[in-house]
Amino acid sequence: MNELDTYYRGMYDDSRLTPEAALEARERIRAMIRVTPVMTSDVLDDLAGASLFFKCEHLQETGSFKLRGASHAVSRLPDDCPGVATHSSGNHGAALARAAALRGFPAEIVVPEGAVPAKVDNIRRNGGRVRFCPPTQQGREDALAELAAQGLFSPVPPYDDERIIAGQASCALELMEQVADLDTIVVPVGGGGLVAGTALAARSTERPIEVVGVEPAGADDTARSLAAGSRVADHRPETIADGLRALVGERNLDIIRRDVDRVLTVEEAAIVEAMRRIWIELKQLAEPSGAVALAGVLAYPECFRSRRVGVVISGGNIDVDALLAGLA
Amino acid sequence: MNELDTYYRGMYDDSRLTPEAALEARERIRAMIRVTPVMTSDVLDDLAGASLFFKCEHLQETGSFKLRGASHAVSRLPDDCPGVATHSSGNHGAALARAAALRGFPAEIVVPEGAVPAKVDNIRRNGGRVRFCPPTQQGREDALAELAAQGLFSPVPPYDDERIIAGQASCALELMEQVADLDTIVVPVGGGGLVAGTALAARSTERPIEVVGVEPAGADDTARSLAAGSRVADHRPETIADGLRALVGERNLDIIRRDVDRVLTVEEAAIVEAMRRIWIELKQLAEPSGAVALAGVLAYPECFRSRRVGVVISGGNIDVDALLAGLA
Repeated sequence: MNELDTYYRGMYDDSRLTPEAALEARERIRAMIRVTPVMTSDVLDDLAGASLFFKCEHLQETGSFKLRGASHAVSRLPDDCPGVATHSSGNHGAALARAAALRGFPAEIVVPEGAVPAKVDNIRRNGGRVRFCPPTQQGREDALAELAAQGLFSPVPPYDDERIIAGQASCALELMEQVADLDTIVVPVGGGGLVAGTALAARSTERPIEVVGVEPAGADDTARSLAAGSRVADHRPETIADGLRALVGERNLDIIRRDVDRVLTVEEAAIVEAMRRIWIELKQLAEPSGAVALAGVLAYPECFRSRRVGVVISGGNIDVDALLAGLA
Repeated sequence: MNELDTYYRGMYDDSRLTPEAALEARERIRAMIRVTPVMTSDVLDDLAGASLFFKCEHLQETGSFKLRGASHAVSRLPDDCPGVATHSSGNHGAALARAAALRGFPAEIVVPEGAVPAKVDNIRRNGGRVRFCPPTQQGREDALAELAAQGLFSPVPPYDDERIIAGQASCALELMEQVADLDTIVVPVGGGGLVAGTALAARSTERPIEVVGVEPAGADDTARSLAAGSRVADHRPETIADGLRALVGERNLDIIRRDVDRVLTVEEAAIVEAMRRIWIELKQLAEPSGAVALAGVLAYPECFRSRRVGVVISGGNIDVDALLAGLA
């Protein structure tokens, strides 16, 4: 536990996250988030040999599931909180900015240089103030620690945080209500907030639901950490899935080890192909990270065959101007 | 009336299309089409100064509203129909192929050279046989007449056809049920099937609903025809909105003249900017033609201010590989 933890532990001390914490978090954030729709496609079902139910988190406010965890974390802050801060390549930053703005708190977002411009814009559009930092895990953490040391901003880490994990669980809780008899839920893994939350959610029902995480092969620190038996912290992720370049968090890894059935890895070409399929068949503008779960389903058909599979499209904040350049 | 007309007139002779014909067509096609969702965006509402309700026809089966008219036309054919044929730059072709396949009829689709490859693929995916022709109105009509002369294929024109117009009306009929108290419905205008159908639908309710068509300035033959008092047939359309390059049909122009409140024109840059906005704010992969209605709303705010406006996103069949090339 580092010193940032100390700051908020007093407010939300649930050191062993439970399914009940996930259910409670969902109630707290109900008015702050959208219930996102679920889409299906006969063509993609045929391709996968399974029944796929796409949970459309790119249609969440701010364009990603991150609003769920951020809303929950902010809901736990006291009214006299002077402000919030975080580091984020984009989606958590925009989500935290929005959640904070709803309570009237300022939000400072530390963004690694080289982040997708559309995501930086999205942070600003949602009311966040952007500060750039070197594009390394250390650079992010140093910049956030500096902000926190000023005492003006309560840090809200992007994933390694009980409040965040409990909030992200609401995505799978919704999905399980929307689709009866799911066998499996597949989500992308970056820092591990979504997959950990999903695991909590899956434990809240009697039906055994398998939880599968999918990582880009170029950002496979979670798979490596599981294989090594301890968190691999010296990995330098390189992947088109910019939302998954963070290293898995300690808390997240604990939950993954305990409650996630498997973590698959997918190549870059498989991510692009899955994104292409989502664009063509669903007409939904998934970002690369948002296509990683489907990439896993298509790359490992034996894990999913004939099953009812929830596939989370985690976000849709892509560089639209780059796409338009291709069309011209 | 040309000789192709004679072929099907006997089967569906409703020379004055009425709102009742639209309602009847909707019942006939109910099981063959999707009820498409309606989406909203606070950001786009602010931008337009109006309440916008986006009718998501890109989420229709085959990726465009065209399935509505094609399904209706095919529903009017006798069981012993040997097959169907049409000319289409893509969306009507895919729609007709699908509608025909549901009845077990083969479908021959005449496609102008230079059509968007994704749309040609989409015709084939839906079971259509593709024949290329010179990319002119005359080239299209000659090729279709040649097919029809073989006697093996019943021609189903893409827009200048009562069955098609009555079928396209179902889009607005649905929208009026989904959104209460609409003041205006805005649709793109190419051959005029959708706008004519929308006008029929609007006349089916007591509430006065304004119907607005929007054309690319580079394909403004409908506006020119209205100004000239007769159909302008020598226009060579040039626009990124490939679905709107057809010239307005005779029947369509008659209905537009009588029942459409106005036809606006928009520049190419406005179409691209509207498409960009739909991608960013709605995360929906509209094709250029599908963004033309929004382009009209944003270009002529005085026509829509403070009103409740239905905006039809007519299709989403875009060249995804070109977009991916921009991202690389």
